[in-house]
Amino acid sequence: MPPSDPAPPVSDAGPTVAELTEDDLLALIFPLLPVGSATLLGPGDDAAVVAAPDGRVVVSTDVLVEGRHFRRDWSTGVDVGWRAAMQNLADIAAMGARATSLVVTLVIPGDLPAAWVAGLAAGLAAACGPQDVGVVGGDLSGGDAVVVSVAVHGDLAGRAPVLRSGARAGDVVAHAGVRGRSAAGLALLAAGRGEVAPDLVRAYLRPDPPLAAGVMAALAGATAMLDVSDGLLRDAGRIAAASGVVLDFDPVADAFGADLTELAGAAAALDASAADWVLTGGEDHGLLATFPAGAAVPDPFRAVGRVLAAGPTGPGVLVGGLAPTTTSPGWDHFRG
Amino acid sequence: MPPSDPAPPVSDAGPTVAELTEDDLLALIFPLLPVGSATLLGPGDDAAVVAAPDGRVVVSTDVLVEGRHFRRDWSTGVDVGWRAAMQNLADIAAMGARATSLVVTLVIPGDLPAAWVAGLAAGLAAACGPQDVGVVGGDLSGGDAVVVSVAVHGDLAGRAPVLRSGARAGDVVAHAGVRGRSAAGLALLAAGRGEVAPDLVRAYLRPDPPLAAGVMAALAGATAMLDVSDGLLRDAGRIAAASGVVLDFDPVADAFGADLTELAGAAAALDASAADWVLTGGEDHGLLATFPAGAAVPDPFRAVGRVLAAGPTGPGVLVGGLAPTTTSPGWDHFRG
Repeated sequence: MPPSDPAPPVSDAGPTVAELTEDDLLALIFPLLPVGSATLLGPGDDAAVVAAPDGRVVVSTDVLVEGRHFRRDWSTGVDVGWRAAMQNLADIAAMGARATSLVVTLVIPGDLPAAWVAGLAAGLAAACGPQDVGVVGGDLSGGDAVVVSVAVHGDLAGRAPVLRSGARAGDVVAHAGVRGRSAAGLALLAAGRGEVAPDLVRAYLRPDPPLAAGVMAALAGATAMLDVSDGLLRDAGRIAAASGVVLDFDPVADAFGADLTELAGAAAALDASAADWVLTGGEDHGLLATFPAGAAVPDPFRAVGRVLAAGPTGPGVLVGGLAPTTTSPGWDHFRG
Repeated sequence: MPPSDPAPPVSDAGPTVAELTEDDLLALIFPLLPVGSATLLGPGDDAAVVAAPDGRVVVSTDVLVEGRHFRRDWSTGVDVGWRAAMQNLADIAAMGARATSLVVTLVIPGDLPAAWVAGLAAGLAAACGPQDVGVVGGDLSGGDAVVVSVAVHGDLAGRAPVLRSGARAGDVVAHAGVRGRSAAGLALLAAGRGEVAPDLVRAYLRPDPPLAAGVMAALAGATAMLDVSDGLLRDAGRIAAASGVVLDFDPVADAFGADLTELAGAAAALDASAADWVLTGGEDHGLLATFPAGAAVPDPFRAVGRVLAAGPTGPGVLVGGLAPTTTSPGWDHFRG
């Protein structure tokens, strides 16, 4: 579970970043950053050196942009640091790998309180520390809006990466993590109704993906896997397309009945559809995987459907054997 | 040398990024990205997999922000892609390593021509391709200004990294690459006088660091090294501080006489100081290194000074045995 906020090393009433030199700001941040056991050389030189015992390194990157992915009146620096780390750590988990390190670039306006930046570092540390992941480097720049770009590195320990392309007809579709909670929390914040379900708001602000489940899935023989960042249907469509198959989810009330119950209060308060949140809500960062029909689906995965051969209409996603009826297609970053 | 612009795959008069879906935009970019021989799994899954034959990976990251590091009326997408790659590749070279791969996050306004983004991809490819460096992953987001954040990975081939902290009294100070050219080119652009020295403008738009010199320096026994991104004096001060020594450059007319001659026309046109550009200009991305007194300084390094024991005033930088007289301290990203 995400921890409560660490005590900020400086207060919001303290200096802005423009009132500090870059060296002052780095001196504030560096002691807060987590060190992982794979860190051979940490921040402070032109580059860091990280152990890659497998002889390969798994690499991904994700960015958070103020006004697009977060608002500073909703998210603290700690929230944004936590979320920037977690969405990247989930990508490594989705390959069946264990994360070793992050590097972070940070664009910040001059009037940002230095405490916000310290909070961001604390949020990165809160997310990474328990995973033994170090923040090994970064870069700072001024800019008009906050941008947090993270690159993440992981190790496969000799295993093959679990790709999106390996699902085969007959496989079981399974999911680990939460579904629709982040979208519901965001909808509550947007409506000014966060008090209806603070736990859902927190799920949006501090997603808590089942990181250890990625390696478990790989060890259990998962044939395909991804991190659900853009919504269950849309991301299932990516496995379907990459594998040339159809993913058929069980009927929503069967596969996701507990989610619908959990989201019912928020859905009623906003006159929204809990099923839409479950099927199309982004940023929960659960893991969607396929397993051979005979394999035991490892905890915390739950079977939620099956893989079918693609028919005449090609690869795609069904719910209860039918075309999904939700109206929301999931994220597109340059529209709506 | 930076190549001339590749023919853009789409024209500036074509669609904006908001007129394309994210999938369309990725379909435009992906074929342009370079593939390196270390790429085991390229873009398209949750993460990429890159060879790390050394069992360690060298990691760095640097960001370019529109309005801070570049202006779109001065820099094309190709320029920005080239520069984003080169400033990162130089960090890997400065460790004595060979770069293997990049990941890139890109924040772009909806009204940006898709051709600009394709140009950026072409610029990344132009910089990375000849180095056998692949672009293995990325992330896209909307935003109000262009932000290009790159993380870079490299391999040490079993060598120790060359740190900033290894300079010892008696070592030779040497530099590879150009000095002051980027700052002069930027000053010409800012004054609307680019026609005075198009080669200097190009040095700003498309820095061309001596990447292969990093490994050469390591093989020749360099005791310390860094990428000169914030100006010669300021970056020399970092080696001095990390190593607990004084770096004493030869008098400017001796060490950098050819640079002063080369920059004289631009300096005269702007009533500026060529010596200031040489000593404090940023973003040339040359390599500053120290070598044991007895060692041969490998091409293309040139000896430009020596390392002295720190005196009572502690570590620092001298020019001709004296405190530098330049007025400009080098970059600070949140001031001036």
